[in-house]
Amino acid sequence: MATQLLRYSDAAELLQRYIGRIQPQASSQSLPLNETSGRILAQPIHADRDQPPFPRSTRDGFACRALDANTHQFLRLAGQIHAGEDPSAIGSGEVGSGEVWEIMTGAPVPAGADAVFMVEHAEYAASLNPSPSPSQDSAGLESGQAHTAIYDPTTRFVRLPTARMASAGDNIVPAGSEARAGDLIVPTGTRLGAAHIAIAAQCGYAQLAVYARPRVAILTTGDELVPVEATPSPNQIRNSNAPMLAALVAAAGGEPIILPTVPDAEEPLNAALRQALDADLLLISGGISVGRFDLVEGALARAGASFHFRGVAIQPGKPVAFGQIPRENAPELPVFALPGNPLSSAVTFQLFAAPVVAALGGNLAREARFAQAQLTAPWRGKPGPIRFLPAHCDFTLTPQVTLIPWQGSGDLAAFARSNCFAVMPGDGEETPAGTPIPILLID
Amino acid sequence: MATQLLRYSDAAELLQRYIGRIQPQASSQSLPLNETSGRILAQPIHADRDQPPFPRSTRDGFACRALDANTHQFLRLAGQIHAGEDPSAIGSGEVGSGEVWEIMTGAPVPAGADAVFMVEHAEYAASLNPSPSPSQDSAGLESGQAHTAIYDPTTRFVRLPTARMASAGDNIVPAGSEARAGDLIVPTGTRLGAAHIAIAAQCGYAQLAVYARPRVAILTTGDELVPVEATPSPNQIRNSNAPMLAALVAAAGGEPIILPTVPDAEEPLNAALRQALDADLLLISGGISVGRFDLVEGALARAGASFHFRGVAIQPGKPVAFGQIPRENAPELPVFALPGNPLSSAVTFQLFAAPVVAALGGNLAREARFAQAQLTAPWRGKPGPIRFLPAHCDFTLTPQVTLIPWQGSGDLAAFARSNCFAVMPGDGEETPAGTPIPILLID
Repeated sequence: MATQLLRYSDAAELLQRYIGRIQPQASSQSLPLNETSGRILAQPIHADRDQPPFPRSTRDGFACRALDANTHQFLRLAGQIHAGEDPSAIGSGEVGSGEVWEIMTGAPVPAGADAVFMVEHAEYAASLNPSPSPSQDSAGLESGQAHTAIYDPTTRFVRLPTARMASAGDNIVPAGSEARAGDLIVPTGTRLGAAHIAIAAQCGYAQLAVYARPRVAILTTGDELVPVEATPSPNQIRNSNAPMLAALVAAAGGEPIILPTVPDAEEPLNAALRQALDADLLLISGGISVGRFDLVEGALARAGASFHFRGVAIQPGKPVAFGQIPRENAPELPVFALPGNPLSSAVTFQLFAAPVVAALGGNLAREARFAQAQLTAPWRGKPGPIRFLPAHCDFTLTPQVTLIPWQGSGDLAAFARSNCFAVMPGDGEETPAGTPIPILLID
Repeated sequence: MATQLLRYSDAAELLQRYIGRIQPQASSQSLPLNETSGRILAQPIHADRDQPPFPRSTRDGFACRALDANTHQFLRLAGQIHAGEDPSAIGSGEVGSGEVWEIMTGAPVPAGADAVFMVEHAEYAASLNPSPSPSQDSAGLESGQAHTAIYDPTTRFVRLPTARMASAGDNIVPAGSEARAGDLIVPTGTRLGAAHIAIAAQCGYAQLAVYARPRVAILTTGDELVPVEATPSPNQIRNSNAPMLAALVAAAGGEPIILPTVPDAEEPLNAALRQALDADLLLISGGISVGRFDLVEGALARAGASFHFRGVAIQPGKPVAFGQIPRENAPELPVFALPGNPLSSAVTFQLFAAPVVAALGGNLAREARFAQAQLTAPWRGKPGPIRFLPAHCDFTLTPQVTLIPWQGSGDLAAFARSNCFAVMPGDGEETPAGTPIPILLID
């Protein structure tokens, strides 16, 4: 039976094809820039002018003509420019032959200059006597003695020592080299992070249009479940999947709507499905394994559901199903039936449902996120499906990942000690310690 | 000069030592469980009872004595138990010798049974005639014909075919095997994710105490800066670092407080520093390179600041400094002086300031987060410090990372195309394509 299940890669591909057909969200709102982090951009961001708008010095130093600097003669200090100043309003308005201007990081490079040499590399003089020839050794430069002379108000001349050469363009970012006025800088559908907010600010966007968060209905089923506030009998458990899925939905960019828990019976399940028809996505947790009291499939069938996939060869999470329910006067409602064990629910949500939540919110590029880390101890599993096992990664410069011992996909205590899922092969071979393995990021 | 700078690893170690001395936040609040995602836990979470509270079946199948199942004789179907039911109230209250009970995933395993065999593996009969002997081939099993018989209300007997063996413990999670009543499950100081919220729900925590977010003052300096709403002159730029740092602070768990932008002049800087003394952490952006108009160091010196480090051998971000300012009637105010170029600010914030924000918020375990991905194209840099270069990782099962061409640490357009920083060595050697390299996660 397991061999007839869809492979993970095929399920992921099916999912991406589905996501490719999702229409961008129609509904959006305008928010102050500082409130847009993590939201999905509903408009393009264009450069309002060339970036940078002027040739920008990347260093504190001296703007010059590179050919002049490479004579290693003292050059006349003819101007000084700070960030924010207009070079054309200073002195002659340009760096002449045989001249330098002192320039600060971020300042516009004046006309005439084609290079900036760094203040740390300069030598200074108050007059051209008694020592007009280039320094014969660079000890003074290295110890910083020459550098301190800049603070002497008598300084009138600056040179680049023979140990250094200048090239045209040194320490200058040309105007428009980062972006041209009108260029698309951040496309619609981007999940906004600090970098996008920074460039939006740079381009003058005090407000940004962002898409509405998709409404994700969460339906948990099971006769054994009681609410978190209740005291369960010895054979009942509290409903942990609803708050867990709500947190995962919010992290994926959705607005969770927790529906009342439904017992394992036909009519309440039918009613709950009808209640969920207003949402943009439905997550059903539990009730989809093979036993006769798994009623979710029946309820979905009665609601006219069709399926993109039913079951994927992964562990945990094998019974996961993805389909859609027809609606009157509305597009079909996408629905995930997630296995009821909490780790199975979490893994299948991250792998399959999170990208759909993101896409319904206008972010078409979001997929399950993997990175790599080195396995700390050898592992061998029985031949079977690809595994997603609770694990702890130290996320250091040489990231190491350790599997967390667990009692199966109901073991929330093990899940709470993990910070990722290690992706382990189903080939039955040993994975030696030190092997770089994929990890599913969950944070 | 560069060789005298602190190495990155030494700076990171200094920082961790500082973080180790931070006193946990005193201030906390109680929030409904559903509002705690991403917050820092200010109380321990203990198991309210054994987890699981009863021996739990992980499968739909048949609870039995393993020794009985291994006779491969038909066993009498003597009961049926669903999740949430009390086995002692069903039938004889236990599985007798020669008997099985039908059992659902998540249900308590009745007394007398020591194993569950899966419904997919069972064979059925309505009576013990005409075929009481074990099946001679498994074709019926594989094709699922035996399986379908369970839905027949005449079924009275079940057996495990000879191709399978049962062992005591099969498909049962013993009571208390995940956690014992009273066990510490989630320690104080944990950043709450979906797993922690799930187990808090399981243990009956409808509310959780979380620490107050640390207040992080953001002070940007520069004569060239105008607010995002303003139209800059050709030589001015809009302040992009303040909203960028605010987004990074919020992502790190802090509450950003954006102070008015300060020009490059002594008195306004002194005044701004005084204004920041109420915060839990101060970030100063800009004004710390080597030129004479870099006034931040002077202002910090006048405020009596001492430094843990001043300058780290990294690129970008070399001038980053971390220190503290004495306060009357309060502990010293930690302060980061971040370089003014936006990518330098972002990198140094993530490497050094984000862990301090987290620690001030009660989360002592947070460090800069790295993972690995494969470099898509060979790279060779000049010998120099360790690099943190804007890059795009595809975050697939075989994650690949590509460096983003950039015009240096002011290039926000390149930053906006990146989703991580690639960590590249400073040894001057070529890093071949396909090499797994560390990436600094920024999302």
